[in-house]
Order: sequence, then C-alpha cells, then structure tokens
Amino acid sequence: MNEQTQLTVQALHWTGHSLKVLDQRCLPQTITYHEYSDAQGVFEAIRSMEVRGAPAIGIAAAYGVVLSVRQHFNETGDEWRVKVAEDIAKLAQSRPTAVNLFWALKQMTELLDRIQGNPVDEFLRLANKIQEEDISANHKMAEFGADIIGNAKGIMTHCNAGALATGGYGTALGVIRSAYKRGLKSIYAGETRPWLQGARLTAWELAQDGIPVTLVADSAAAWLMKSGAIEWIVVGADRIAANGDTANKIGTYSLAVLAKQHGIKLMIAAPTSTIDWSLENGNTIEIEQREAKELLPECYEQSGSLVTAWNPVFDVTPAELITAIVTEKGVVLNPAEKGIRSLQ
Amino acid sequence: MNEQTQLTVQALHWTGHSLKVLDQRCLPQTITYHEYSDAQGVFEAIRSMEVRGAPAIGIAAAYGVVLSVRQHFNETGDEWRVKVAEDIAKLAQSRPTAVNLFWALKQMTELLDRIQGNPVDEFLRLANKIQEEDISANHKMAEFGADIIGNAKGIMTHCNAGALATGGYGTALGVIRSAYKRGLKSIYAGETRPWLQGARLTAWELAQDGIPVTLVADSAAAWLMKSGAIEWIVVGADRIAANGDTANKIGTYSLAVLAKQHGIKLMIAAPTSTIDWSLENGNTIEIEQREAKELLPECYEQSGSLVTAWNPVFDVTPAELITAIVTEKGVVLNPAEKGIRSLQ
Repeated sequence: MNEQTQLTVQALHWTGHSLKVLDQRCLPQTITYHEYSDAQGVFEAIRSMEVRGAPAIGIAAAYGVVLSVRQHFNETGDEWRVKVAEDIAKLAQSRPTAVNLFWALKQMTELLDRIQGNPVDEFLRLANKIQEEDISANHKMAEFGADIIGNAKGIMTHCNAGALATGGYGTALGVIRSAYKRGLKSIYAGETRPWLQGARLTAWELAQDGIPVTLVADSAAAWLMKSGAIEWIVVGADRIAANGDTANKIGTYSLAVLAKQHGIKLMIAAPTSTIDWSLENGNTIEIEQREAKELLPECYEQSGSLVTAWNPVFDVTPAELITAIVTEKGVVLNPAEKGIRSLQ
Repeated sequence: MNEQTQLTVQALHWTGHSLKVLDQRCLPQTITYHEYSDAQGVFEAIRSMEVRGAPAIGIAAAYGVVLSVRQHFNETGDEWRVKVAEDIAKLAQSRPTAVNLFWALKQMTELLDRIQGNPVDEFLRLANKIQEEDISANHKMAEFGADIIGNAKGIMTHCNAGALATGGYGTALGVIRSAYKRGLKSIYAGETRPWLQGARLTAWELAQDGIPVTLVADSAAAWLMKSGAIEWIVVGADRIAANGDTANKIGTYSLAVLAKQHGIKLMIAAPTSTIDWSLENGNTIEIEQREAKELLPECYEQSGSLVTAWNPVFDVTPAELITAIVTEKGVVLNPAEKGIRSLQ
C-alpha cells in the first residue's frame, strides 16, 4: 500500500472472502463492521445506508458482484451467469440516485458477458481496480480543487463526501484535506438532517485526521455566509447531468442559491464516474424519497396521524449556480457557460 | 372565558397562587407542567427553554413578578420594592433577544414605581391583562393575515409561533389557523434544528386542533419552494427594529433569501409589543448564542475536542425581504418601502 492509500478511515474492507462494511449509522459513537458473504447482504447494507456516498456505493456493489460470482460459479456450473446477472439486477435496486452504482455494475456486467474460464480472480481484480482508481481520482481532484481555492480562509461542506463516502480520502473532503494542508483556517460542516451525516460522519472523519471542524445547523448556513466567515461551499455529487446540473444531498440546492446571493463560490468535487452523459440536464434525475419516519417523532407514526413528512434525499442544483466542477480528469469553471464535455 | 380564549393548548396556567409551565422540551412525547412559586423558578423555566416564544416569555416573566410581589410584600415590609426590583432584573437576564420580555417587565416596573397599598391584586391584574391582550391581539392579526393570504394553497412556517409561544392561538400559527378555516390546503413546517420546535411543537399543536401538517427538513425548504407547493412563508418574530428588520429563529433569514429567489412571499406576524422602537435597524439586535452541545454528539463534548459548533439561536431578516408585517394594530405591506411607523 503506497502513501496515498494509508487510510485512517475506511468504509469498506475486502477480507479475501467477504466484504466488511463499516456501519455508518452507528458513528461516531460506535465503530462496528458487518461482514457480508453474498450479494444479498451487500444489497441490504446499501439499501439500509450502512454504507452511503455515491462512490462508496459503487465500490460496495462491485464487491457484491464478486461475492455473487464466488457463490455461484461452483454451485451451478454454466448457469452461474444467470444467477450473477440476477444479483447485479438486485444490487441496481438498492438506491436510485447515485449513478456510480450503475456505472460500477455496468463494468461488472461487461466482464460477465465476455469472461471465459474461472471468473473469481478477474471479478475481484476489477472490483479492486474500481476502488483503487477511486482513491487515486480523489487525490487528483483534491489537488485541483485546492489549487482553485487558493488562500480562502473559510469553507463550508454539507453531508459527507469524505473517505467514508468513497474508496478513501474523499471528494469534497479530499479537497478540504488538501486545502487544510496548504493553510485553510476554518472548516464548517452543516449537520445535514435528517441523517446528520455532517455531525456524525464529516466531523468524526476530520477529527480522526486531526483537522478541526465547526458544526452548524443547516438553517444557520445563510447567517454564516452573511457573517463573512466562508468563501467557498465544497460538496460532492450523486449524479451530474451532461450540462453540469448536479444531484446531491438535500440542502445542496439551498446552499447554492444562498451562496449566489452572498457572493460565495460553489465547488462540486466528484469523479467522472458520477457524470451521467445520458441525461441532457438534471430535470429527469430520479430523486429518492425516503420514509417519513426519518423525520417524525415516533408518536406521529401511527396510521391516521395528521402529521406527515416530505423527505426527498437529494435535490438538483442547476449548473448556473456552480462555480467549478472538479474531477480527476480536470476542472470546469462556470459549467453553465462552457459545458462539461471537456471531461468526457 | 369567551369563545376566543377556549384553548386546546396552553403554555402557561396561573393557578391563583403559582404559575404552571408546560415543559415544552418534553413535547410531543410527554405533557408535563412544572409549578413555580417564585420568580427564580420562572427565571429558570425561561432560561432553560421550558417555555419559549417571545410573547409567552413576556407573559411568564410578568407572572414571575406577581410571584415575587406575593413572596416579598408580607416578608419585608417596605423593603419589598427592592426585592421585587431585584427579581425583575434577574428575569431580564433570562433570554437576551425577545423584546417582549423587556416590554412586559417595563410595565411591571412602572407599576412598582407608582403603586400604593397592597400590591398583589394590582400586579396580578396587570399580568392577566398582558396575557389576555396577547390572545386578543393574536386573533386580530390572524384575520388580517388570512385576508392577505387569500386563496393561497400552500404555506410554510418555521419554529413555533403558535399557542405554545404566546398567550394562546399564536401569531404565525394564528394566521395559519384562520387561513385553514378559510380553505388553506397545505401546511408545511420546517423541523427547526437544533431544538426541533417545528417537529415537536408546531406539528403537535396543529394536530391537537385537527389540522394536518407536513414536516420537512430545514434544508429541504428551497427544494419545496422550487416544487411550487407554497406561496407564502409565515413566521413570528422575537424582535422587530423600527425599520422592519426582524430577528426570529435561526433559519428565518435563510427562508427569506430563498423565498425572494423563488417568488414566494414572506409574512411576519407579531404583536406590536415585539417592535423595539429604540432600534433604528436590525444590526444592533443582540443574537443569543447557545451551547455547542445542542448540536454536538456527546462524544465530541470533552475538552480539547477538534469538533465544535456555532449555535446562534436567531438571525435577522432585513425588511427588504419581508412582504408583510402583520400586527394587531394593522398591516404594513413592503415595509422596506413604507416604513412601519404606522404601527406606532
């Protein structure tokens, strides 16, 4: 393992015969890994948000396919391809918005279509490659992003686009880690209701690396902007359309509109695997709705309750509110003017 | 008690010899009243946010002074005025932002300065009057506000400016109650971190009255606005400066900026006791900062932690983002253009 891949925080760990998944629902109080030996287990781990974050979901799904191949190749002779294809279809149902999931599963399907002989090593090699390239991409975009940020004194992030959301180092938090090494003073994290990924994951992850961070209520971001404390918002992405419109954690669109009004810049940091070239713009991105009970006090959950909740997990930020899209292949400034085809 | 003052929800209850305070920190799970027999107890109830909401704080403080008068008038002969003045000074320290507190205590002080003979009945009469006039003011502004809202289909509110925050019926929720009687279809409440007054208080209070409500994460408000579901934001106020700038629960400024960008209107509903004529504008309103631990997971609370929090309780919305200020004395539309002196 080279210097770049020395990780203090790791969402996923391949044991050689199983996938260990850090249960992010229990952080920061408890560090618990669950071990999965089949694709169904990985499906559940993604669906239930033990593991979350677009790149990490893609990597987990890739290892889920490796587990499927291990399980079925010996059991069912030539029929194993059908079983693996079924597991791939199942994994694709785990979460709807992050495109990295479908991107990783597409590579697995292409390998399934062409492979001859014992497939186990080949599938494992591909999953490892997806993870390693993700980490490497994060380091590249971290430096690109830090170059753009320059001498900014304060940055705010939202949700967790860190090591926990990726193969390692992080997308938005990769940029922030690199900017911190270069002298960035103040890092603010929105707590990110309803799952509190900012409070539970981003704060924990940065503290693990010795980086100080200040939490704010999501609704305090505008007042923070008005105070002059921040020059940039830096976030990750779950899906980027071909015109630069970006789906990310609910609240990103809010920050984008507020940033524009306060003269603050917005950076999206994401690997090119997050770009969905099939979508002309963000209008047709499917937005996952999760259960109302993530927001409701328990006493409102009975049937016939007059109290309900609207709980979209993502929103779409139009390209014209984005200052920079940073990927491992390079940077697009003002994507609404220039388009993002240079990243293809 | 007339029809207007039949209340399903009551934050404060004068027993004849003590003040019962509904502990709003325990709602909606538990309905618990604590009984206080002296001003110190009422001070603690305000400071610890058992009772909150600008008008309710003022009313509670007024009854706190009644308790002080009852306690000291017999004990210390002519020195009772000094003791009561000390308790008034103490009560003024309970919360810094809501001006209704100082407004109520000022009336108590004026009575203290002029009263002769047994003061107990007079102080009680004044506290009752403050409460009854508050309820009456809420009903007036509710009708004014509903007139302005007209046929709007969807309204969002923030925090709790309801019966629980006032003598009864509510300011913003008074407007919403009256608009609902006239046919309003959809009511959205932001959950209002960190105390979740929207989720715990506003949702509970509306459901108690048979009014359906949909909770959203605070950070989802912009996406809700973009969906076209709401035409108005209606909120209360903790302090209004003489130019119309309005301090209210953190997140109000965020909603105001977002509303402007989405062509949505913003109504402030508050009694004229909330207006601080001594302040030319909102720049000098003291913004209470509360403890970081309201936002922090417990494991970050040890000394030397790299994780801290910035926790302002209020923000200030400039008058130019406000469509209407609604009081019991009447309405000001576009306060930034017209000023609010007509309410004096």
